[in-house]
Parts: sequence; structure tokens; C-alpha cells
Amino acid sequence: MVSQIKNNSMFANRGMQLEKDLEQTNQYYIDNDIAIIYKKPTPITIKKVEYPNQKYTKIIDGYFSKKSTTDYNGIYNGKYIDFEAKETKNSSLMLSAIHQHQINHLKKVKDHGGIAFVIITFSQKNETYLIEIEPLIKLDKKSLTVDDMKNKGYLIPLTFQPRLDYLKIIKKIYF
Amino acid sequence: MVSQIKNNSMFANRGMQLEKDLEQTNQYYIDNDIAIIYKKPTPITIKKVEYPNQKYTKIIDGYFSKKSTTDYNGIYNGKYIDFEAKETKNSSLMLSAIHQHQINHLKKVKDHGGIAFVIITFSQKNETYLIEIEPLIKLDKKSLTVDDMKNKGYLIPLTFQPRLDYLKIIKKIYF
Repeated sequence: MVSQIKNNSMFANRGMQLEKDLEQTNQYYIDNDIAIIYKKPTPITIKKVEYPNQKYTKIIDGYFSKKSTTDYNGIYNGKYIDFEAKETKNSSLMLSAIHQHQINHLKKVKDHGGIAFVIITFSQKNETYLIEIEPLIKLDKKSLTVDDMKNKGYLIPLTFQPRLDYLKIIKKIYF
Repeated sequence: MVSQIKNNSMFANRGMQLEKDLEQTNQYYIDNDIAIIYKKPTPITIKKVEYPNQKYTKIIDGYFSKKSTTDYNGIYNGKYIDFEAKETKNSSLMLSAIHQHQINHLKKVKDHGGIAFVIITFSQKNETYLIEIEPLIKLDKKSLTVDDMKNKGYLIPLTFQPRLDYLKIIKKIYF
């Protein structure tokens, strides 16, 4: 089976809408000089390449390697920002969707004085929440519900520009 | 022409020794809880994939896309760190080896309160230097020599553990 795809972002995160919203938001932050936050490229291990011509290297065998950290990082107001983004069609997000090494990474970022959190979209409700890493760990639950987010996290209102202004929440908490 | 390769890092940076030294150094920083700094994966655009089985996605057509930012970023002492690393076999490094959008990115990081620099290895001399983005821009030269680095940058001594202790220099400048 062969598929034609535009880019590899669809593999990085099945939640395409959240990814698009965050891309638009981060671009807005960059364009307006508010913050510099990028999605990290998906790590790929390449097994074989071809050189059809001097200027072009074609990858003909490769696979998606395990992510060592999180999806997004950057700088806001002098502070290091690091987060993972997840989307679910269900009424709750299985915590296993966030890998243990990603949780550990976010905890370490927090310990080093950075700002670390997870953004979760519940696509049925069309609601997106931000939860910092420490309350998320303290919840100690196998799945995260909308109520958990309401109690321990923050709703990110969906707006036109930027789409998901998560830094507005970070600003309130930290600055 | 077909090549077998271990991973895509050889494409990201022809200077393999510097990349290896930085990998060992960053791992040392993580293991000793000094800093959390990673090399970003090389951005790849995927054109075609196959599914040999349910668990495996094989990339059968793809290419290296343009890098939007720099090679390394992370957090040290609560501060956002961002840098590019270059190695040259010549007596000077053509500044064109560092793309204009990477220079702009590093300047923006600095403006947002982060720590931004370039690490350059002159492999003939086996010497590695760190230069902050602002003096690098002020130099306004088309190629960077060892003397430029001695005047405006800092020599990173080659040690056993960690190999290239660049944060020792950052600590002296910023903390």
C-alpha cells in the first residue's frame, strides 16, 4: 500500500486541527514579536538515500524514530517554554498518549526554571485546555477528563487571531 | 547511486566531529542535571510512504527540507539557550555557511532575553570557539577567522568529560 502525503506532520500528531491551530498561533506570536516558539521536526531515521543529481538527495528508505522529547519549545519573555500537544475524539485522554519520557522531560524543564505544560483538545466538545506539568503529575490518573482540566487546568478560548492564545494563560500564571 | 547510512545526522552537518562532541557534551549536561539541551531533528519532507505491516510506516520518497531555525536549543539555569554549530577544514568559515534566517533567528532570541551564539570548530587547528550572536553580527565580515574568534569569541577547551564545556563560558558571561 502506497500513500501520497504532503508532509510528515500528520504522523507526528493525529490531531491535525490542534496542530494547525498551534501553527497559526505560533506564527502569530513570531510575526508580532511576542514569542519564538516552533514545532520540532519529527525525528526520522534514514536507512537509504539516492542522489538523482548533484543538488538533490532522495530518501528511499527511512522510518519514524522515537521522539526523545516534546513537540514544541521556544522562548517567551525571557523564559524557556516547552510543551506537548494532544487531541482526542473521546471524552477523556489516556495518559499513556503522553509518553513517560515526555512527562519526565517536562518535569525536568520545570525543575530547571522553565515553563512546562500540556495542551489537550477534546475535539467532540471543541474545547482546548492547558495544564501545567506539576498538577498533571499530581492528578495521578490513567485518563484525563474535561472535568480534570476544568479543575486543574485552564480553558484556552478559541479566537480568530491568534487561534489558541495559550500564552495569555502563561502570562497570567507567570508574569 | 545508492548509499547506506546509519542516520540522517551526517546530512545535517558535515562537521561530524563537532556534532559528536556536542552530543556527548549535551548528554553529560542531562545526565548531571546541569542543562537540558538537544539537537533538533533534521526537517524532512515526506512525499511517499508504504505500510509493509500495521506497525511499520516506511518512507520511500522524501527529501531534506530547509531548516527554519538552528541546530540546538534548550534550557540552562532558567535561561533559554539557542545556537548553531559549524565546522570548517579551512582557515576561516565563510559566513554564508550560517544562513541569514538562522542569524535573524539568533538575533531575535537575544532580543527576547535568551542566550544565542554560534560554535565554530576549525578542524585543522583542532580548536573550537563560541561567539555570541551580537559580536558576530557586528564583525560584519564575509568570513570568520581564528583571530576573529580570539578577539570577539571564547575558546572552548577540549576536555574529557564533558568534551566541549561551552556552558562554562556561558556561565562566566551570564551568571
